[in-house]
Amino acid sequence: MDSYPSILLENAVNQVASLPGIGRKTALRLVLHLLRQPQNEVEAFTSAISRMKKEVRYCRICHNISDQEICPICQSHRRDHQTICVVENVQDVMSIENTGQFTGVYHVLGGVISPMDGIGPKELEIDSLIERILPEHIQEVILALPATMEGDTTNFYIYRRLQNLLESNSNETPIDLKISQLARGVAIGNELEYTDEITLGRSIINRTLFNG
Amino acid sequence: MDSYPSILLENAVNQVASLPGIGRKTALRLVLHLLRQPQNEVEAFTSAISRMKKEVRYCRICHNISDQEICPICQSHRRDHQTICVVENVQDVMSIENTGQFTGVYHVLGGVISPMDGIGPKELEIDSLIERILPEHIQEVILALPATMEGDTTNFYIYRRLQNLLESNSNETPIDLKISQLARGVAIGNELEYTDEITLGRSIINRTLFNG
Repeated sequence: MDSYPSILLENAVNQVASLPGIGRKTALRLVLHLLRQPQNEVEAFTSAISRMKKEVRYCRICHNISDQEICPICQSHRRDHQTICVVENVQDVMSIENTGQFTGVYHVLGGVISPMDGIGPKELEIDSLIERILPEHIQEVILALPATMEGDTTNFYIYRRLQNLLESNSNETPIDLKISQLARGVAIGNELEYTDEITLGRSIINRTLFNG
Repeated sequence: MDSYPSILLENAVNQVASLPGIGRKTALRLVLHLLRQPQNEVEAFTSAISRMKKEVRYCRICHNISDQEICPICQSHRRDHQTICVVENVQDVMSIENTGQFTGVYHVLGGVISPMDGIGPKELEIDSLIERILPEHIQEVILALPATMEGDTTNFYIYRRLQNLLESNSNETPIDLKISQLARGVAIGNELEYTDEITLGRSIINRTLFNG
């Protein structure tokens, strides 16, 4: 039982400790740090969070976080709008953007299929992905979901939905849609000794031609 | 270089990442967590912090955090008001209260003397401690400062100030003030093997009579 000297302090600690991965000791340390800051800095802190919560939107096309109705990536004329990279969340968009290796556009699902957590296809932005394929003349869908069971399930579900879409297409000209996924194998810089057995085993089965 | 999809998001991440011990990845995770919460919960979060910053006070007597002008401990009739425990900060009051072993009152210095960080006696609540001794008829001062060089320096400084006070006392009856400090030695539950050499060495020199 912690004995807080002030109810105001205790309320603030309770709120900060409700954040994921923040324990009560850390919360107290953070709150006492804020208490030592000047009034205007604490106001800047709380108002940045309030404003973000009130004003941030989700892009109408790709469902990434955005300040406007359509995000800068979907608006950009320098991106390849025929290639969609499907990701789980906003952080994944940022990670792929940071590589500088992708010039297409995104589609943020908002999660992966996980029956254990009650997340089915209807809870995710999968219908809106399927609806983009024909009108936007998409040529490639890159499935960039996590290499977990849930990620694989979601990959397979989207793959099947895309196949259905292509088969039910009543246009005279057949659609040529490429569906790809991220390469999986030994991470760059890793020793084989410390690579897990499943990854290493699949890396042998799915070996690629050496082109020196 | 991180590429944030929204300036509002980036501002919120910058603010959270300015907290001590919170990196940019953690800050992004926390901010996206808040973004997924209902509006009223985010408001409860920010307003608990704002209210604490605006309304929390420091007790006029012991300088602990308090909701009122005088903290509950200093107001309590069930505490021993002749025994002052001198601590570095608010967390230390909470730690000692949690032991349930102390029934006296506190004095929070707000830090320890640390010339390297520009903290001298004038930056701390030392004068206000000295001024409490005679009017409150204090019988014991317990120095409960950290067992570091800075803590020891502060202990010694307060000890000298208290000695000066007793010597300059012009009353006919001499004051009987006990000055004590926390016991130092091997922590309860610790193996000698893992106790540092300085602590173990001092524990031998300052051994106590076994009264098992």
